[in-house]
Amino acid sequence: MSPALNVRRAQSRDVAAIVAMLADDHLGAGREDTATPLNPAYTAAFEAIDADANQFLAVVEEAGAVIGTLHLTFLPGLSRKGAWRGQIEAVRIAGGRRGDGLGGRMIEWAIEECRRRGCVLVQLTTDRSRKDAHRFYERLGFEQTHLGYKLTV
Amino acid sequence: MSPALNVRRAQSRDVAAIVAMLADDHLGAGREDTATPLNPAYTAAFEAIDADANQFLAVVEEAGAVIGTLHLTFLPGLSRKGAWRGQIEAVRIAGGRRGDGLGGRMIEWAIEECRRRGCVLVQLTTDRSRKDAHRFYERLGFEQTHLGYKLTV
Repeated sequence: MSPALNVRRAQSRDVAAIVAMLADDHLGAGREDTATPLNPAYTAAFEAIDADANQFLAVVEEAGAVIGTLHLTFLPGLSRKGAWRGQIEAVRIAGGRRGDGLGGRMIEWAIEECRRRGCVLVQLTTDRSRKDAHRFYERLGFEQTHLGYKLTV
Repeated sequence: MSPALNVRRAQSRDVAAIVAMLADDHLGAGREDTATPLNPAYTAAFEAIDADANQFLAVVEEAGAVIGTLHLTFLPGLSRKGAWRGQIEAVRIAGGRRGDGLGGRMIEWAIEECRRRGCVLVQLTTDRSRKDAHRFYERLGFEQTHLGYKLTV
């Protein structure tokens, strides 16, 4: 049996490690800034996330190192009889830890956390090009029911 | 020229009208509860939305009646250099007012509100079966870049 996942709320000292994981990805590479010192836009974003009780930026730690991250948001809404939804964004695993089931355990943790918070639905989108991610979420029980649109403003 | 859209933050007295619009839809009909008095789950959800500065449940009013609604959420995140995103959910137009461009004006209002709040991206998902909605968002400049997954918990 796998040992329990060591998941916790991210702290400001984790932001550089999270940004490094966001950038270590074929889509993220062109979008992020891994310069040192850290771009202050990341620090400002972290503070906004951390101040909001409906945001849970999670990191997975192992032997003192951050090896995974995901960002959960709990969304109130009137639809579906006032249902809360959990939304998962920015799922990343550190390079050396991919392919051994850690991602699946992180998503299962996220689903359980959504349930604990009273959500009746968990939702996420993935880029059309991430074919492996589509199979991954389908294996975990997600249904591909929606199309996701974006507009840069 | 069309007169300016009269959009405002929803108040508790608007909830029944919003629920009626959510239910007046081929997918919403089976999901919502239009009984009187209003199911208290809607009131509780409204209070959670209204208490959160990153939620903007909007209604469009005309001659004292609510004729449209959408729910905007402003989401902080580390991705894309700490970009804020605007997310649009639960877009509905009252039955008698569909087909005269009101929906497009509401989405343009929402995009402008996201810009005003510093978002760099506006995102939404629509059910795969809503073919008219897909064309509608594409005409407004949205790109269908993602697949949307849901899991009931």
